[in-house]
Amino acid sequence: MSHFRPVALEHASRLINHGPTVLVTSTDGKRRNVMAAAWSMPVEFTPPRIAIVIDKHTFTRELVAKSGTFGICVPTAAAIDFTYAVGSCTGKDVDKFERFAIAPVAGPRLGVPIIERGCAAWMECRLISEPHTEDAYDTCFGEVVAAAADSRVFHNGHWTFDASNSDLHMIHHLGGGNFVRVSGIVAANPR
Amino acid sequence: MSHFRPVALEHASRLINHGPTVLVTSTDGKRRNVMAAAWSMPVEFTPPRIAIVIDKHTFTRELVAKSGTFGICVPTAAAIDFTYAVGSCTGKDVDKFERFAIAPVAGPRLGVPIIERGCAAWMECRLISEPHTEDAYDTCFGEVVAAAADSRVFHNGHWTFDASNSDLHMIHHLGGGNFVRVSGIVAANPR
Repeated sequence: MSHFRPVALEHASRLINHGPTVLVTSTDGKRRNVMAAAWSMPVEFTPPRIAIVIDKHTFTRELVAKSGTFGICVPTAAAIDFTYAVGSCTGKDVDKFERFAIAPVAGPRLGVPIIERGCAAWMECRLISEPHTEDAYDTCFGEVVAAAADSRVFHNGHWTFDASNSDLHMIHHLGGGNFVRVSGIVAANPR
Repeated sequence: MSHFRPVALEHASRLINHGPTVLVTSTDGKRRNVMAAAWSMPVEFTPPRIAIVIDKHTFTRELVAKSGTFGICVPTAAAIDFTYAVGSCTGKDVDKFERFAIAPVAGPRLGVPIIERGCAAWMECRLISEPHTEDAYDTCFGEVVAAAADSRVFHNGHWTFDASNSDLHMIHHLGGGNFVRVSGIVAANPR
């Protein structure tokens, strides 16, 4: 049974607010792909918009340009090897979902490939065409049109990281296949 | 004695690759400011470039537009209250450095205010003027022209997070003053 539940769009930014490494999924209807991306961020709460760096030489970029859509899936510590692997090879000649035995489902709004196994959250995004920044900085902007998260670790619009769900915590890439995991929540004391 | 050592510019992206919350510092020569920003990312290795969301209504944005420069300081767990505090008030009417008793130093290349106390790294950035993305997405691009990091936690171009330096680990904002800290490094196993 899936633990994923819809996330209200006004809370979508929280899924990547803390800077985890993500997976970018894409399809042009015939071919499909998944890659890892450490460089992404929200840029607006409402409408929920994000920016993500997708190198112009990647197969993902080609599919995103064709379809005008992409998925963002947020991998957990359980998916660290998969995340590094799909970030280290191209999908031009091989279907990485088959190669790594990951069965995506079609996103409810846009039909982008969505990975729930090993992930804690996902978003379906519509590309906002920005030719200049796509060209100059490989920076693609997108609007989130659907989102969901694993209710064991994201509840009522908030992450609930604790020792009981540590396998579902995000990973943050340092470089070269080294990641850090987030630990428990620490609250600031207002001054 | 400062533990900060220069970071080679080709390694600058690693300072924020894992998505920590950062402080943005700025000055127009007369006034100065510091704010917190959860939304930033590298966009290029060489030349080292980053993108950061700075709301157009903030005092920081005004100072950055005037000076064409800004600083990025990477706060540690020791600076969690300060980080939240400077992200929750404006610097228009008060000098936040004075208010929170933080004495910045002038960056070596651009003279932007640099905070080392409570931080693990910093970068001096030159704004790359992009009026459209600044206006449409509050997204500012910058080129890193100088960088440094605390050698107790960043060495030879790599973060060295472990239990011995946990006070120097980064914080990642979830929202509402709740942060997560990164824990130890986990290496992916190549497939």
